[in-house]
Amino acid sequence: LSWQSGKLWGGRFVGAVDPIMEKFNASITYDRHLWEVDVQGSKAYSRGLEKAGLLTKAEMDQILCGLDKVAEEWAQGTFKLNPNDEDIHTANERRLKELIGETAGKLHTGRSRNDQVVTDLRLWMRQMCSTLSALLWELIRTMVDRAEAERDILFPGYTHLQRAQPIRWSHWILSHAVALTRDSERLLEVRKRINVLPLGSGAIAGNPLGVDRELLRAELNFGAITLNSMDGTSERDFVAEFLFWASLCMTHLSRMAEDLILYGTKEFSFVQLSDAYSTGSSLMPQKKNPDSLELIRSKAGRVFGRCAGLLMTLKGLPSTYNKDLQEDKEAVFEVSDTVSAVLQVATGVISTLQIHRENMAQALSPDMLATDLAYYLVRKGMPFRQAHEASGKAVFMAETKGVALNQLSLQDLQSISSLFSSDVNRVWDYGHSVEQYSALGGTARSSVDWQIRQVRALLRAQQA
Amino acid sequence: LSWQSGKLWGGRFVGAVDPIMEKFNASITYDRHLWEVDVQGSKAYSRGLEKAGLLTKAEMDQILCGLDKVAEEWAQGTFKLNPNDEDIHTANERRLKELIGETAGKLHTGRSRNDQVVTDLRLWMRQMCSTLSALLWELIRTMVDRAEAERDILFPGYTHLQRAQPIRWSHWILSHAVALTRDSERLLEVRKRINVLPLGSGAIAGNPLGVDRELLRAELNFGAITLNSMDGTSERDFVAEFLFWASLCMTHLSRMAEDLILYGTKEFSFVQLSDAYSTGSSLMPQKKNPDSLELIRSKAGRVFGRCAGLLMTLKGLPSTYNKDLQEDKEAVFEVSDTVSAVLQVATGVISTLQIHRENMAQALSPDMLATDLAYYLVRKGMPFRQAHEASGKAVFMAETKGVALNQLSLQDLQSISSLFSSDVNRVWDYGHSVEQYSALGGTARSSVDWQIRQVRALLRAQQA
Amino acid sequence: LSWQSGKLWGGRFVGAVDPIMEKFNASITYDRHLWEVDVQGSKAYSRGLEKAGLLTKAEMDQILCGLDKVAEEWAQGTFKLNPNDEDIHTANERRLKELIGETAGKLHTGRSRNDQVVTDLRLWMRQMCSTLSALLWELIRTMVDRAEAERDILFPGYTHLQRAQPIRWSHWILSHAVALTRDSERLLEVRKRINVLPLGSGAIAGNPLGVDRELLRAELNFGAITLNSMDGTSERDFVAEFLFWASLCMTHLSRMAEDLILYGTKEFSFVQLSDAYSTGSSLMPQKKNPDSLELIRSKAGRVFGRCAGLLMTLKGLPSTYNKDLQEDKEAVFEVSDTVSAVLQVATGVISTLQIHRENMAQALSPDMLATDLAYYLVRKGMPFRQAHEASGKAVFMAETKGVALNQLSLQDLQSISSLFSSDVNRVWDYGHSVEQYSALGGTARSSVDWQIRQVRALLRAQQA
Amino acid sequence: LSWQSGKLWGGRFVGAVDPIMEKFNASITYDRHLWEVDVQGSKAYSRGLEKAGLLTKAEMDQILCGLDKVAEEWAQGTFKLNPNDEDIHTANERRLKELIGETAGKLHTGRSRNDQVVTDLRLWMRQMCSTLSALLWELIRTMVDRAEAERDILFPGYTHLQRAQPIRWSHWILSHAVALTRDSERLLEVRKRINVLPLGSGAIAGNPLGVDRELLRAELNFGAITLNSMDGTSERDFVAEFLFWASLCMTHLSRMAEDLILYGTKEFSFVQLSDAYSTGSSLMPQKKNPDSLELIRSKAGRVFGRCAGLLMTLKGLPSTYNKDLQEDKEAVFEVSDTVSAVLQVATGVISTLQIHRENMAQALSPDMLATDLAYYLVRKGMPFRQAHEASGKAVFMAETKGVALNQLSLQDLQSISSLFSSDVNRVWDYGHSVEQYSALGGTARSSVDWQIRQVRALLRAQQA
Repeated sequence: LSWQSGKLWGGRFVGAVDPIMEKFNASITYDRHLWEVDVQGSKAYSRGLEKAGLLTKAEMDQILCGLDKVAEEWAQGTFKLNPNDEDIHTANERRLKELIGETAGKLHTGRSRNDQVVTDLRLWMRQMCSTLSALLWELIRTMVDRAEAERDILFPGYTHLQRAQPIRWSHWILSHAVALTRDSERLLEVRKRINVLPLGSGAIAGNPLGVDRELLRAELNFGAITLNSMDGTSERDFVAEFLFWASLCMTHLSRMAEDLILYGTKEFSFVQLSDAYSTGSSLMPQKKNPDSLELIRSKAGRVFGRCAGLLMTLKGLPSTYNKDLQEDKEAVFEVSDTVSAVLQVATGVISTLQIHRENMAQALSPDMLATDLAYYLVRKGMPFRQAHEASGKAVFMAETKGVALNQLSLQDLQSISSLFSSDVNRVWDYGHSVEQYSALGGTARSSVDWQIRQVRALLRAQQA
Repeated sequence: LSWQSGKLWGGRFVGAVDPIMEKFNASITYDRHLWEVDVQGSKAYSRGLEKAGLLTKAEMDQILCGLDKVAEEWAQGTFKLNPNDEDIHTANERRLKELIGETAGKLHTGRSRNDQVVTDLRLWMRQMCSTLSALLWELIRTMVDRAEAERDILFPGYTHLQRAQPIRWSHWILSHAVALTRDSERLLEVRKRINVLPLGSGAIAGNPLGVDRELLRAELNFGAITLNSMDGTSERDFVAEFLFWASLCMTHLSRMAEDLILYGTKEFSFVQLSDAYSTGSSLMPQKKNPDSLELIRSKAGRVFGRCAGLLMTLKGLPSTYNKDLQEDKEAVFEVSDTVSAVLQVATGVISTLQIHRENMAQALSPDMLATDLAYYLVRKGMPFRQAHEASGKAVFMAETKGVALNQLSLQDLQSISSLFSSDVNRVWDYGHSVEQYSALGGTARSSVDWQIRQVRALLRAQQA
Repeated sequence: LSWQSGKLWGGRFVGAVDPIMEKFNASITYDRHLWEVDVQGSKAYSRGLEKAGLLTKAEMDQILCGLDKVAEEWAQGTFKLNPNDEDIHTANERRLKELIGETAGKLHTGRSRNDQVVTDLRLWMRQMCSTLSALLWELIRTMVDRAEAERDILFPGYTHLQRAQPIRWSHWILSHAVALTRDSERLLEVRKRINVLPLGSGAIAGNPLGVDRELLRAELNFGAITLNSMDGTSERDFVAEFLFWASLCMTHLSRMAEDLILYGTKEFSFVQLSDAYSTGSSLMPQKKNPDSLELIRSKAGRVFGRCAGLLMTLKGLPSTYNKDLQEDKEAVFEVSDTVSAVLQVATGVISTLQIHRENMAQALSPDMLATDLAYYLVRKGMPFRQAHEASGKAVFMAETKGVALNQLSLQDLQSISSLFSSDVNRVWDYGHSVEQYSALGGTARSSVDWQIRQVRALLRAQQA
Repeated sequence: LSWQSGKLWGGRFVGAVDPIMEKFNASITYDRHLWEVDVQGSKAYSRGLEKAGLLTKAEMDQILCGLDKVAEEWAQGTFKLNPNDEDIHTANERRLKELIGETAGKLHTGRSRNDQVVTDLRLWMRQMCSTLSALLWELIRTMVDRAEAERDILFPGYTHLQRAQPIRWSHWILSHAVALTRDSERLLEVRKRINVLPLGSGAIAGNPLGVDRELLRAELNFGAITLNSMDGTSERDFVAEFLFWASLCMTHLSRMAEDLILYGTKEFSFVQLSDAYSTGSSLMPQKKNPDSLELIRSKAGRVFGRCAGLLMTLKGLPSTYNKDLQEDKEAVFEVSDTVSAVLQVATGVISTLQIHRENMAQALSPDMLATDLAYYLVRKGMPFRQAHEASGKAVFMAETKGVALNQLSLQDLQSISSLFSSDVNRVWDYGHSVEQYSALGGTARSSVDWQIRQVRALLRAQQA
């Protein structure tokens, strides 16, 4: 009879099976990643059952011991899946029964796969968040260290990819580091919402056997318990949030990668990737391609695709558990792997990147000081709008004459505004230019130093 | 000469224009929403300029007074746009100049549209977050009040849309309310990151004129200032976060709407929408359609589409300001409007929904107590796996005999397990069933009351 | 020296490598799926080289023979990857060299991985399209056969999930089958654009060695050749189109799955899934869950996520080949597998689904004929708008009286309109009702038969 | 009584209304775009009613004449909406009734808003497709004309943004033009599926009054009729397809825009945008920003967001009409407007773009001929893999010596391979290099000419 087949839902089914459906339904190929947290959750649950009087102390010990053996087999690579193990939860319980006998059948008392699976996933993701935080901090720290070391190098700042104003190279590095600090702040918030225990919610209605959820929470070191069993078993906000967190973080890195790809072109020649992060061409012998950066740039798409996919799957779903939710885990695993690799490769790229400071210096040109020229007039009392227009006329005059902006004669300038006098020459010094931008957040050395201190303080606070 | 045309960039352009390009480029059709915050930002900035010695007290007063007039014109609907007003910033400054003359040209000193526009947007969104929080709290409060009032009504809980276990109707309401409390928590976090001041970042390099950004922050009541001028002018994390926040919130409401649409079918007949939230058919006279709920369900798509669009626009963008970022505002405005309407309509739906408690009661059936039957055996000492199987056999037996599960005779049950005795009859009481689920988060009355208290406490804390 | 390491780009790199970067960069874990088409493409290319005089006949034969051996090893599972095989192209060429020596080094003459990889992918996808077309036709055929067999069963048609009008069950089946015929039509169009040969485009500039691309096309049985080498090596329209095709097809099936999940609830009880496509609950013994349908519904999200991911990756990418494009293959492989499984499971579900025709019949109610009641008046000459209003009044009157619409007396009806007479009774016959809808596309038997013939004709035409 | 309020669903509702719900529900603010096609559809339908005997000839003429008046009022801007006009269909019918009296009430006989609205949308989109096709052809034609005129200009071809091989500037133009021909091909296919008539499907069950759908099809010049009334009223494949079509087309243009933005940087200096398509900076007088191109690049995100939004809205929707489908129109209107503007601006940009041919020439460097150097050895009989390695060694040697690749002495080269002789000098000629790439699709002049002919032939065929 079919109820002897050992499938979890035992007593009732009489039909045959479709092997494609079996495979379609099974999650063991990927949820085996959860083996460790599944054991961890089951151990805590068995303690809860003992406290509630549903297991004797001896039964609990037997189960705990059996679960440790299961974990050992996984750790040593000796755990053998059998064809009926459709998911990690079934596999572990099946094995437990083989190891300790009928007592194993008490472990699932009052528990459902609905609360079990989401507890496992939260445990796994909590750990992954810590891992990713550490990788992210490492990247930020690398960037800040580099910013500190290279803070006297100037190069062009671009807006709209057009040369805009001279800035410190460190100012550029910090612009990306600061973006990443928001990612690490957000990750801590996401982790806070991951760190909530659903165990004890059963399938939908809750737990009727006196299991103490606060005890489970403490056992598994969660920050809080879910408030409602229907919501607790089926909400996947923490997954959606994590996927979006990753999407935004990858988007940041796609932008940094784009900058570096541009700066590494022959035309810009500001930076050169280490060979370790470049590849060659199967056809063109002279090529050295920034594959690492292109892959980093590309991953924003993949990761966001997973986020989009999950949201679409959730849209309009009737409440409580539906099998649709099984889509959560592959997304989480793939995205975690991707982000982990991207962060490490990005750290490698940044820490080995060579910069060509002479090219950076040469790329600065007097027209980039047109704004400063306007400010010169402002300081002499001209309203900014007029000063902006006057400076624009100077740019136009220089272009018309075919000379650099700083090569206009004082006479030329005075034909535009009588406020120009010989001290205008100070404007044409790039070092002097950047030092003017001393308001907080600007590109003056004092401000860059302040930024470095701020980011380091943020990191310290986040790591606390 | 073209520099007399009065365009912001004055002095230099000599080409003609393409009217389609002009329209393509202009943002005034939608960024006029920002008129009030643009004036607010400019007033604060003029105070900053005065402190920095770039405006005299008299000039500042003149500007402040002029800006108040500009605001008054907008408020009274008398502000007249002219064809060259490509955006709200240009429009307001142009008008200011008409009102107070050349002094107006001093207002933009050291400021760029890059830091101005993002300051305006943050001011606007900060206010919008407060509005949406209030609407969200109102919805949650309505749900909790209703949950409290109707907490003795039972009906079927579903998983996989199959009848699972009897639950309290309030437990269902609270499952959605609890999801929304996460949205309101997240919105406060998003608001915190919106509430950061970029003004004083200039176009890219910062501010060179001694403007005190801390003073600007205090004037505009921001929580912090942006750390890096390149990042501060071009990061749109707060927009992406807001759009994703809205997407997740709308996804929650799409699920609640789906439930209610189902519960309102003839087949379920648990609830009936108020006429105010239904519409009829142009063809079928008997129809009463849940248009409100369908529209709520549909908006998750629209809102997420805006989030997807922005992320895609940001992907791979070179750092600092690029015109691509102009896509941010329409997304924010549309999403804000949509979420605002959805929250209000949802509140109206919930507060006027009729429920059919007799249909709810009739939908409970003994097979929904099969789990409780297994727990009966567990309490008599049988391991859960065996008890689950035994209960499954009872279900199968009842189906085979064509009777309800509670109509199996004691003999029938004892043929499955000798642990069954006459006290099994208590299992068949739905009221008794739900009361068993007394662990925190479950469907027992005490737990539902606890949930109500928890959610109310959360709301109080969030509103603080 | 590093140029002896045997990496494809040989002569130049001197740096060390980062193992995480190596793994990040490698595609062999998934592009090994391409082994067969890679060999196929290389065989064709070696013929092209021979025709162009770049290989002697003997060299070509040696290469062809070696490639056959490579393929044999893959087919028999004896091909051994080595750690430097970063992708399938490198692996196959490395092995070829081991098998036949230096001549292998001539195979890549004038070819680049840029044109090689996209040729391989097109070959693989062309085959996959044929497979998916066949699976889709099988599903449609199953649906049409079932529609033909069950065409005399009536049940409620719903709009807005509210009972609307009586329809044939076959009309419902065909509504989904017809949607799928558009998918199969579109798949043929996508296949047409896949079936275009890029080989002979080199890395970017084309082929300089007289290789005849028409000959390559004929060898590999492509329908056309790409027109421009820069575009040909880097456009992934065919991938994006395929992913979108799959997204729309999965969306169709998500809607069919949603209908069937609803129809399979206790409340509707129109259909019952075969046990082979249901699963039980680990907690609740009475449950039988439509996991197959829920998984089908969920996959629309996953598949669309891949489409979104690819589009985002492509957005703003500089033209020609960039490593970002490596994201294409995993998306294609995963989506192909998913769609293939979904189509087969859907076919299984449809072919084994039980229907409860008595429940279907009982669900028909007289108010569903209110439109027909209006048409009755229209046939007597009343303008439709008035007739609609009159019928609405009848519905309201019946509700107020607490009777079914068909139980209003003739007097009742005549109080609404004097056009009612005793022949109104004919309206209340469901069989009569559906037969009225005889315009093409309607639910009358003749129209349903016409639909069946049309869909069959479409299938025949598509398979031609 | 409420049924006298004149709302379409007349007779039944008794509740009050929520003004926010009214606004939330109404579509008139945007579907008024459909006024013309709504009149067109109604005119055809009234002819159908007359043929079916449901209107007398006189009644039909009255309706036709009234509808013409309605259209005239819209065209002249004198149509007055009233507050109850929730959508364009209600508005037009309301006005018709005011103009011609009770006969207007016969127009909707057997029609539902479900089939009416989707017919209108298809009519509108059919026209829009023609408009967009024409704009797309105009853009392609502009590009091809330019490619023909400038086909002797060489510049660097890039892969991975690294200089790869010399190519013709026209080859680059054509690479984007060829991509756009696929868009125009696809648009014709989408149009074919738009061009199918749903009218006569009623709300769900079809038309019971003998209306001849073939006649309606002919009247409205559709290519076919929908096969199934349930599908015909609720499928939005053609909308999804259109939105995806637009997404892919915009993605193409985002890539072209990205190229041109790069080529227009100071560092590349290959092209210069016309002033008409640039804007200046509010702060920096020297700036000239490629806003047109940045906006083009950004729109891929917006447009794809609409596509994502619609797909998500459709996912899991129960079949037949649900109000969720109302999301279709705003998406279509916004995307149509966006694509139309982008195509025109892109045409303007391309037709006015200045190129700096001397900079293009100067950017060519001998290392870009390393592949040709390898081919030199191949032609002398060396297997390509060895030749690639040898050329790589030459590149390395030149780098080490700090000279250009073409400045290695013959002796140097011969130290790498004895196959080098004095004719190696021919390799260093860029003009000679590109002429080698004469296989179809390559960058030789003959191949570029062939591409121009091919694209022109395609356009002619598509316009036929």
